[in-house]
Amino acid sequence: MECRVFCLGCGRERHGLEARCSHCGSPFDIEVSGKYSDRLQDNFPYVSRWISLGEVQTPIVSAGGADFKLDYLSPTFSYKDRGARALVSFLRGRMDHGTINEDSSGNAGAAIAAYGSAAGFRVRIFTGSRAREEKIRQIESYGAEVVRVEGSREDVQRAAMGADGVYASHVLMPEFRDGIRTLAYEVFQQYSGSMPDRIFVPVSAGTLLLGLHRGLRHLLESGEIGSMPEIVGVQPEKVSPICHILEGRPYEPPVDGQSVADALVTQKPVLGVQVAEAVRQTGGTCVMVSDEEIMSAHAELSRAGLFCEVSSATVYAAYKKRKWQGRSLLVLTGAGLKTVMGY
Amino acid sequence: MECRVFCLGCGRERHGLEARCSHCGSPFDIEVSGKYSDRLQDNFPYVSRWISLGEVQTPIVSAGGADFKLDYLSPTFSYKDRGARALVSFLRGRMDHGTINEDSSGNAGAAIAAYGSAAGFRVRIFTGSRAREEKIRQIESYGAEVVRVEGSREDVQRAAMGADGVYASHVLMPEFRDGIRTLAYEVFQQYSGSMPDRIFVPVSAGTLLLGLHRGLRHLLESGEIGSMPEIVGVQPEKVSPICHILEGRPYEPPVDGQSVADALVTQKPVLGVQVAEAVRQTGGTCVMVSDEEIMSAHAELSRAGLFCEVSSATVYAAYKKRKWQGRSLLVLTGAGLKTVMGY
Ligand SMILES: [Zn+2]
Ligand SMILES: [Zn+2]
Repeated sequence: MECRVFCLGCGRERHGLEARCSHCGSPFDIEVSGKYSDRLQDNFPYVSRWISLGEVQTPIVSAGGADFKLDYLSPTFSYKDRGARALVSFLRGRMDHGTINEDSSGNAGAAIAAYGSAAGFRVRIFTGSRAREEKIRQIESYGAEVVRVEGSREDVQRAAMGADGVYASHVLMPEFRDGIRTLAYEVFQQYSGSMPDRIFVPVSAGTLLLGLHRGLRHLLESGEIGSMPEIVGVQPEKVSPICHILEGRPYEPPVDGQSVADALVTQKPVLGVQVAEAVRQTGGTCVMVSDEEIMSAHAELSRAGLFCEVSSATVYAAYKKRKWQGRSLLVLTGAGLKTVMGY
Repeated sequence: MECRVFCLGCGRERHGLEARCSHCGSPFDIEVSGKYSDRLQDNFPYVSRWISLGEVQTPIVSAGGADFKLDYLSPTFSYKDRGARALVSFLRGRMDHGTINEDSSGNAGAAIAAYGSAAGFRVRIFTGSRAREEKIRQIESYGAEVVRVEGSREDVQRAAMGADGVYASHVLMPEFRDGIRTLAYEVFQQYSGSMPDRIFVPVSAGTLLLGLHRGLRHLLESGEIGSMPEIVGVQPEKVSPICHILEGRPYEPPVDGQSVADALVTQKPVLGVQVAEAVRQTGGTCVMVSDEEIMSAHAELSRAGLFCEVSSATVYAAYKKRKWQGRSLLVLTGAGLKTVMGY
């Protein structure tokens, strides 16, 4: 298997470990050629040695007519471990030590902190001043340094990008997104090839959706599946740029742009067009859900023993909004304990 | 396979679903005969239909010279799910609906709440007034009712025992302890029969240790393993009744009987003698660890990406206290997120 890292804007190849093209400023993408294999290492030629913190094939359970993939049963209790594991393992093959920087006060920050520290890197996580205290504590527990930055999200990102070391961005670094392909492979293995008709995922920056799409496409192109499951992206009404792109409507973030789904915050997704295009390619759609629908879906899931983050319950809120034909799989992305203090 | 439930004090059989013998007041034990099978249902003849919330074979990872079983990668994020699943599935076979009561403001309460609610029971969890707020939130999320009782731990237990419904005690009900046999079976499967030389577990009421011992003994008697791994029980210095029993020394709980390991609180274990005897049978031992040793072990595990509850880090503190021959497996029992707000 071969792989190539190229700029999404001008097509130039990446020289080192930079997060953006030095020529046009766009993020990079990664292209892996070769057929799907059931061995992890074969599917990720750019990783020579995988760091492991005890990943499992996350379970799928049925409840309320749908299937749920409990992707929070993961070392740092969110699906971001898939991306962090691939990115950090890749970086570990390129540098023996040094510093990695990331801007996220949420699940991505925890995942990069855990894998980064375990890999022997010094890890700095840049956050805004409004970050949730319990998420910060988790990040610090892994031995990462939390750097608080006053100002907007853009200011926080600038600080992380400008700091000494590698900018291990979960949004920009293509190895992070690409690592999420493992989700598609697991689903394929768990359904023994007979895939669900559609897969619901929450969408913020869109890395989950893009990674899932890429894995499914790989399975399709390898002849392992006959058609793509539809991908249904779910966004809170208050943070719904992708849904707007798909519907061809202009998007203006509301003044009160904070929903109860506090992990879904991306009002201006860098890869928005790619995310919308991925959904379209599968014949899927984007569903917007209200705060009330999210809270009610969350309560119902909890009572069924599926204790996820509030943000993760968006997929069940979307599922409940209409009658879907066939079999639906909903990805629950973060553990309920992550927000248990918050509501 | 057959099974028999009998009183540990006078040997009489249990009539219904009572937690203590009506004749002598002792708790019951359960005896299952028949050989080990690699099918779950064969090993638990008293469960007709298993409730599932997405249990996985919890992973084993190596770090710092030891192996760790991440038993917190479980639906409610602690090993108690093993016991709660067996007990609630058993009860579900005996009653269609109704109320179950339990006294625990910690991991056992969360586990009983989740499985109980999912099984369709009304669940009431009785707690003292000093219970941790985030654990209460988790319990309530599952739809259980939390009943706060003023007074001692004994007062809380009396209230739970006296309430209408079944007293689904994690300490007294033998199906809970017995459900923890699955831990031994998983370890056996994961090591492909070549077992570790010893297994470290934290000890509070001793249900984990007793269930593990019972599973190992079953494997031994079934001819699946040639000898028992040693079981090493670990207790905080401030809550160390089992260690004292094993050393034949009288135990007087210290006035400040609260350690940083706040899930390990049992100063007067009902099954203390059985727990000590189980350790002795395996040629194992009991190790006491100080608060300082626990916190230092917890920090070290977190930096390695193994983010467990403070109480769970006791096993690593014990492991670090001396040089152990051969291969050691340490069971990490609760997720770090459970106490992330607490230190
Ligand atoms: Zn470019
Ligand atoms: Zn009796």
